[in-house]
Amino acid sequence: MTISVEAIKQLREETGIGMMDCKKALTEADGDMERAKEILREQGLELMEQIGREANEGRIVSYVHHTGKVGVLVELATNTDFAANSEEFLTFANDVAMHIAAEAPSYVAPEDVPAEAIDEANAEFRKTLEEQGKPAEIIEKALEGRVKSYYKDECLIKQPFIKNPDVLIEDMLADLRTKTGENIQIKQFARFEIEGAGCADPLAAAS
Amino acid sequence: MTISVEAIKQLREETGIGMMDCKKALTEADGDMERAKEILREQGLELMEQIGREANEGRIVSYVHHTGKVGVLVELATNTDFAANSEEFLTFANDVAMHIAAEAPSYVAPEDVPAEAIDEANAEFRKTLEEQGKPAEIIEKALEGRVKSYYKDECLIKQPFIKNPDVLIEDMLADLRTKTGENIQIKQFARFEIEGAGCADPLAAAS
Repeated sequence: MTISVEAIKQLREETGIGMMDCKKALTEADGDMERAKEILREQGLELMEQIGREANEGRIVSYVHHTGKVGVLVELATNTDFAANSEEFLTFANDVAMHIAAEAPSYVAPEDVPAEAIDEANAEFRKTLEEQGKPAEIIEKALEGRVKSYYKDECLIKQPFIKNPDVLIEDMLADLRTKTGENIQIKQFARFEIEGAGCADPLAAAS
Repeated sequence: MTISVEAIKQLREETGIGMMDCKKALTEADGDMERAKEILREQGLELMEQIGREANEGRIVSYVHHTGKVGVLVELATNTDFAANSEEFLTFANDVAMHIAAEAPSYVAPEDVPAEAIDEANAEFRKTLEEQGKPAEIIEKALEGRVKSYYKDECLIKQPFIKNPDVLIEDMLADLRTKTGENIQIKQFARFEIEGAGCADPLAAAS
């Protein structure tokens, strides 16, 4: 049987486990969502134990575009140095650094966005809706959608990966966690760009 | 005749021009400080015109230590792309990135240090002196010395270069400005280090 992308996404969101493992579990469960969760739970006990461990190891990775005018530094945490040396990890780290250079997110994750930033981004829209006399619950609903799209614009893990827009960075991260069995985290990043250089899309040549 | 290091340093501080040019001017002026300033002023007119120009070009440079546990990203500004491609500039940029990785300054320059940081660093010392009943002017004098040493600890341009402690980073910058005739600036930097990695001196092997 074919497993729908929606079902895989739902399972991923509910469990935080990588797409590939969700698909495998759903296939094994003949598409039964509850059974798939059980399968993941059984497989996952060992994994979750590892996820609980402190992520004290890791790597600093940099990407500087060939023009020398955009550069990125990323800190990634792992549980062990072993995982930090793995090819999967290093590929992910380099992909993320390149993605940040191209897409220029402002934060790693929604929880890093200060409440004021969202209030500010929504202030004018909220005012317009209020002036139109919309009921409070309609306004909240409309703003909720905008917040989601704000996260997609500004938060690294909510962005579609520049080299493969079908997956989000958080999907890639979840896959990597499953593959390595480690609590891999994107801790922080810095992105510098030469301002006066006048290149609206400094990575156009790379994409 | 031999020109003293003190004279060269004094001339550099008063003019902001690189050590090598100060030495040359003092030699030409037979050690006469005022004459040396005149020589620099004559040579310098063209240079100063360039220094006044906006520094809109530049480069982003990164340094990641071979352990992968310390990384640095630096933004340097130049007037022209030509200077940013020069060997002198790139050598300086890479040296500065490596220096930041090793010495972990907190700011680029004294003007970047928030007043509160200095007040905080001095609070206890000031309190002790006040309790000892020292006169205000003595206290200010003592604190002045501490501020200088704080700058040396925390500000990149006030630090002795790790590969040659006889020169400060600001001396190297002044030399580079003279050599290229451009208003080269260190705009900002980021430095990440894997915290739990337990290396007190992560660059020990490199120095």
